[in-house]
Amino acid sequence: MEILVDSAALAAEAGGMKTDTICGLKPVDALFRRRPEAVLRLFYAEGLRAAAGPHCSILAAARKPYRMVEADELEKIAGTPHHGGMVAVARARIPVIFDVLQPPKVKLLLVLDGIGNPHNLGAIARSAAFFGVDAMLLSEGAYRTAEGGLEMIDIYRSRNLPNILANLDGHYRTVAASLSREAVPMSELPRDRPIALVLGNEENGVSPPVMEACRRHVRIAGSGRVQSLNVAQAAAVLLADLTGAIG
Amino acid sequence: MEILVDSAALAAEAGGMKTDTICGLKPVDALFRRRPEAVLRLFYAEGLRAAAGPHCSILAAARKPYRMVEADELEKIAGTPHHGGMVAVARARIPVIFDVLQPPKVKLLLVLDGIGNPHNLGAIARSAAFFGVDAMLLSEGAYRTAEGGLEMIDIYRSRNLPNILANLDGHYRTVAASLSREAVPMSELPRDRPIALVLGNEENGVSPPVMEACRRHVRIAGSGRVQSLNVAQAAAVLLADLTGAIG
Repeated sequence: MEILVDSAALAAEAGGMKTDTICGLKPVDALFRRRPEAVLRLFYAEGLRAAAGPHCSILAAARKPYRMVEADELEKIAGTPHHGGMVAVARARIPVIFDVLQPPKVKLLLVLDGIGNPHNLGAIARSAAFFGVDAMLLSEGAYRTAEGGLEMIDIYRSRNLPNILANLDGHYRTVAASLSREAVPMSELPRDRPIALVLGNEENGVSPPVMEACRRHVRIAGSGRVQSLNVAQAAAVLLADLTGAIG
Repeated sequence: MEILVDSAALAAEAGGMKTDTICGLKPVDALFRRRPEAVLRLFYAEGLRAAAGPHCSILAAARKPYRMVEADELEKIAGTPHHGGMVAVARARIPVIFDVLQPPKVKLLLVLDGIGNPHNLGAIARSAAFFGVDAMLLSEGAYRTAEGGLEMIDIYRSRNLPNILANLDGHYRTVAASLSREAVPMSELPRDRPIALVLGNEENGVSPPVMEACRRHVRIAGSGRVQSLNVAQAAAVLLADLTGAIG
């Protein structure tokens, strides 16, 4: 298959444009559905040739490159063996600034207060996508490629989470994850209204002003043998619970 | 504080002895309770001086070194900022070979079929300790330092998981995590008997012979947007469910 080169896109990248690498059939489908114009390149394994067809047509019309590649090359492009046979490179998304007067209308808004590790952010985004979360709010410019998970979720950002959370009350029950014994176990959390669930930084948890701005503080009941779960594991457990996937 | 040097221990390490680095107050307490003779060195932050006292006495009697250190040095020794103020170095544990005729009597046995990534193993062990799991069975020599989690759990090993699982039936309900649509959702799993929960490799899941040896196959209900959770997140969700921490 001939490689068509989008020289404008390559020049933009060479000029320092940030890109996302999106892996997997469904995340790439979501990418082409939500922002096809942002895709720069597509690579896929032989087994996904048919699935890649419609995407290739879009790219061909836009004179952007696409190519069927061997498994080892695909892994190299993806930077991970978990590429699911299809890898797209796209212009990085710029998260929308969160408007507290017009917040997204979703059942569960996931708020991340300073998650610093991209591996954790990626794992949390993947769990959020798995459990069907529709919107995430990040406290800073931590948006990164996240194993495709973020491609399926509306991403918002804010530099003032305490202010936003204090004013979300009419729309969401604001709930911060906490290690404090004063926090209530998840089983005591009412589920009658949409929830904004706030998870904190890996080391320090939810910051004091954000904690203060939240109406309720919840904890995951554990054995007490170790103090806490990793944040990505805590996120998965809380999302599984709040979306009704288990229990 | 004077540093006492255990020259025999240092010589053994120089000779290639494997060591574990155990971080955190409770994991180090567990280490001193379960195998004090294996501890080689102890380091702690000023705030944990009193808590370290009994451990230091044990080490002093055995002419092994211990020392109060600054935060940055503790992080360097631990190799992570998540050291909880106390770090012990100990001889690596050698997991016990699993005896199917005398399996451990626990409510929940966690079986890992070929988890390859030490980061995942560490995260799973931490979740297992958090949710109070007492015993883990590993399919191969993948035992490693796991953020202290493994120090609190009895670890067994086996080179023939399918055979063991096929013969565990009198003791445990054998349950493999699966992505198959034919697997039952967790809510349909009976909880009336002890469970041996089997999680598979990051890329390939539970291997076919192990899958075949298990009586039941369960899945975590998701939105279908992405195919699967990361294994460490799936472990946390399943353990939270099976230990009754949520739901």
